[in-house]
Amino acid sequence: MKSDIEIAQSANMKPIQEIAEQLKLSSTDWEPYGYYKAKLSHTLLEQLSERPNGKVVLVTAINPTPAGEGKSTVTVGLGQALNKLNKNTVVALREPSLGPTMGLKGGAAGGGYSQVLPMEDINLHFTGDIHAITTANNALAAFIDNHIHQGNDLNIDPRRIGWKRVLDINDRALREVVVGLGGPAKGVPREDGFSISVASEIMAILCLANSLNDLKERLSRIVFGYTYDQQPVTVKQLGMEGALTLLLREAIKPNLVQTLENTPAIIHGGPFANIAHGCNSVMATNIAAKLGEYVVTEAGFGADLGAEKFLDIKTEAGGMEPDSVVIVATIRALKMHGGVAKHSLEEENIEAVQEGIKNLEKHMGTIKHFGLPFVVALNRFPQDTETEIEVVKNWCDQSDASFALTEVHAHGGQGGVELAQKVIQTVEMGEKKFKRIYQREDSIEEKIHAIASKVYGAEKVEYSSKAKKQLKQFVELGWGQLPICMAKTQYSLTDDPTLVGRPENFTINIREFSPSIGAGFLVALTGNVMTMPGLPKSPAALKMDVDDNGNALGLF
Amino acid sequence: MKSDIEIAQSANMKPIQEIAEQLKLSSTDWEPYGYYKAKLSHTLLEQLSERPNGKVVLVTAINPTPAGEGKSTVTVGLGQALNKLNKNTVVALREPSLGPTMGLKGGAAGGGYSQVLPMEDINLHFTGDIHAITTANNALAAFIDNHIHQGNDLNIDPRRIGWKRVLDINDRALREVVVGLGGPAKGVPREDGFSISVASEIMAILCLANSLNDLKERLSRIVFGYTYDQQPVTVKQLGMEGALTLLLREAIKPNLVQTLENTPAIIHGGPFANIAHGCNSVMATNIAAKLGEYVVTEAGFGADLGAEKFLDIKTEAGGMEPDSVVIVATIRALKMHGGVAKHSLEEENIEAVQEGIKNLEKHMGTIKHFGLPFVVALNRFPQDTETEIEVVKNWCDQSDASFALTEVHAHGGQGGVELAQKVIQTVEMGEKKFKRIYQREDSIEEKIHAIASKVYGAEKVEYSSKAKKQLKQFVELGWGQLPICMAKTQYSLTDDPTLVGRPENFTINIREFSPSIGAGFLVALTGNVMTMPGLPKSPAALKMDVDDNGNALGLF
Repeated sequence: MKSDIEIAQSANMKPIQEIAEQLKLSSTDWEPYGYYKAKLSHTLLEQLSERPNGKVVLVTAINPTPAGEGKSTVTVGLGQALNKLNKNTVVALREPSLGPTMGLKGGAAGGGYSQVLPMEDINLHFTGDIHAITTANNALAAFIDNHIHQGNDLNIDPRRIGWKRVLDINDRALREVVVGLGGPAKGVPREDGFSISVASEIMAILCLANSLNDLKERLSRIVFGYTYDQQPVTVKQLGMEGALTLLLREAIKPNLVQTLENTPAIIHGGPFANIAHGCNSVMATNIAAKLGEYVVTEAGFGADLGAEKFLDIKTEAGGMEPDSVVIVATIRALKMHGGVAKHSLEEENIEAVQEGIKNLEKHMGTIKHFGLPFVVALNRFPQDTETEIEVVKNWCDQSDASFALTEVHAHGGQGGVELAQKVIQTVEMGEKKFKRIYQREDSIEEKIHAIASKVYGAEKVEYSSKAKKQLKQFVELGWGQLPICMAKTQYSLTDDPTLVGRPENFTINIREFSPSIGAGFLVALTGNVMTMPGLPKSPAALKMDVDDNGNALGLF
Repeated sequence: MKSDIEIAQSANMKPIQEIAEQLKLSSTDWEPYGYYKAKLSHTLLEQLSERPNGKVVLVTAINPTPAGEGKSTVTVGLGQALNKLNKNTVVALREPSLGPTMGLKGGAAGGGYSQVLPMEDINLHFTGDIHAITTANNALAAFIDNHIHQGNDLNIDPRRIGWKRVLDINDRALREVVVGLGGPAKGVPREDGFSISVASEIMAILCLANSLNDLKERLSRIVFGYTYDQQPVTVKQLGMEGALTLLLREAIKPNLVQTLENTPAIIHGGPFANIAHGCNSVMATNIAAKLGEYVVTEAGFGADLGAEKFLDIKTEAGGMEPDSVVIVATIRALKMHGGVAKHSLEEENIEAVQEGIKNLEKHMGTIKHFGLPFVVALNRFPQDTETEIEVVKNWCDQSDASFALTEVHAHGGQGGVELAQKVIQTVEMGEKKFKRIYQREDSIEEKIHAIASKVYGAEKVEYSSKAKKQLKQFVELGWGQLPICMAKTQYSLTDDPTLVGRPENFTINIREFSPSIGAGFLVALTGNVMTMPGLPKSPAALKMDVDDNGNALGLF
């Protein structure tokens, strides 16, 4: 079998102009970024506003394991398969962060014969959106510290600045730092820390904004810290919303590329789903829905994280509703949820599959809570046995759940035809009765309780004393009506990454809150989740290289 | 008079394809980045290697003052003027850093009717080169800290890591930091600091590399720190040269744009000239010389900084020689060198001009030391009086120096015709006898002495005890043959920014060295020069904005 990058590099890409023409875009609707990437106009969504919306299919998954689930691969493969069935389909994905690419993953543009292209560009700097976000985030940080250094007219308390600097890299050593050391020429000393760029509130804002003006308004509302008398201080007070908007003027434009089978793909925004809201941009998804009969989009990690936030946060900001959900599972991941160690995954293990299905069952329950029809997509790996696959299929049949085996990695769109047919069925039966897990007017505790109990299956929620104090403060500040963005480990339904499968009778621990007033939600940090990942002992980047012709090596 | 951005936004830009065709480039030689920017192939220089070289004109200046000299404006204007005189000319400039753009300057793409376009893009993220450098630099930093955290097989001494993180922003509070705080999950604590991205050794490497392979080899040679037994540790030992090259795979490609009068401009690389080597890339300048009869390029700040490094470092790395030099001065700046305060610049002051000319005289002497013919370009400002201008002109005549008044800001290429004619004269007379200020085989102290005495006019050089210790160590490590990159304030010939004009009998103080083994030089830090600028009280960014149509405001 060829590697991902070998398949990508031997692909038959169309010039991006042909993809744009395929979508009936005029030449003023887009700008080329190289021969195979384009930026769509920031006014395109407004121009298309009168068009009817295509059907939105949300791809989610069971809790991820080190065995890999291939959610992006299924998303791309399903888009290709729908096109094979003559449904004009656009794929809407997130932009990969360099952090995991350089760290563990080595790439995040799908796999095998279901990839988005050019995968090297998409996995590296792409069209620079994440770098623009990093720059805007750190410009704000520099301006805050400079304001304090230059006299602090706004009376900002250096001990109460919530705005962290960011880098698009996994850098453990930057989690907790002290800045401003070295005397009066070097600023005011204070405790600080860096997050990964994709956890920045500016990334969330970019993904939730409906227009350039909405972007600027959201940026102006950012609360980056508090005064000495504990009043929130905003970007508007600092006068920086114009400069931040200017820095994001290109980044707000969604990016057009294509899949291996020339299906149009709009890739835009890339917040992680564990420490951020985990969905691509509202503008990208809504444009895709105007351009395609179907949009296939994904939300990060399991349905407990990305899908919950897609459905509770993104659908409200973007005024959209999914018409169907796909829940991706693999035999290997189910076995890990059933207690098998990674090195024993090659052996057939029926009981482990049966035990692991409980994790899948929980996520199916979550989608039912949201009132949405779904299809379980079993993403086939070469080592899976027929018996193991039968176990899942039979269980789905008995549970009255739609099931499809997919082989999109090995066969591209052709390997996703069964899934595409099932998805079309669920959409055309039109049985969705979408409702959110909580209402805006619920109290913060009620919202968190709803997510913890209905989505995670927790018994109760406990708040640290800091979190309790913040709760009180947030209500006083009028932030009680905002949705909640849970920050939680992706590996478990609980806040403890070691508890796989379907844990019961557990407590979700809210350590602290971080208000994202510009994005329009409150981040609740659970357990020990950190907003800056670390690198493993042997990072993926150590295998990366460029050959003499300038071709990328070591991405997958 | 219209503002720079108003002039830029009403310009008649040609599609970049037409500019490429004007240069007789084939469609495989370049890739579009939007309609008005292109990346040139990384193999273009090699493909053109058999062609003869055009004439290289280096634009430098007197020591800059807060009054502004307009060196980039003259560079662009001269390029336009040479084209008016039917010399096919390509302009080769540096990419602006966001630090000064957001801080004091508000832009760095020329001015008035001598600008490079699209100025908004060039001043903001452009084609992402600086962001790629930031990313590569910080990836290396993260991998170093991770290596130590994961067991430190290379025995790296955390107290002796010279590799700083960087951001492309002025951020005083990051000059001295402590990283790795917060316990075992958050790395190994150590003192650290951030520089601005354009001071990164990776920026210097990108600018001095002749090819993609040369880039990789230089990256592999970077010495980022020392072991506990004080042996240097390289990127090659860490195994990261492949990943770093991959991250720079697009950034190594020079960028093609155009001036207001559609003169082709290649903009690539952007090291500062005070804390780095201050020249655009070797690849860009050499490609420009293959494509044009004339290349007009600039080096940063005064002839004591950018030009010295261009002539001692860049010409050697790139195998090139300038055919003529332009020294830019303004009446306003000469008056400041003559002792006038900024608020009194509007008043005519003949004596101050005469006194300030001594600064110009010193830089003329420097260019003579290098054996190069030159033209003094007096860049006219509206407030300059005829009498003041006469003073400079007459002094040049008496000194047997070629002189030209330029009005390229107000009149574009037409305002630079006299300068262009004088430049062509100096080139065609062919009187250059280029020699460097020092030889590679000179000792480090001899090289520094040569620069300090011949270029700065210093009486002596003093070394701190740290610098002396490093000198000894560098010789032992075999680095004694490397050229020197001086880091010195741009405002003075001395290492004290307050001493303007032409100081005499002064000492240059070498505080410490920083070896840039990949770039191939030793940085000598003088006085209190810092590698991370700070923001002023009212940064330029506070006036920036985007209008409802997405147009940039507040850049100039």
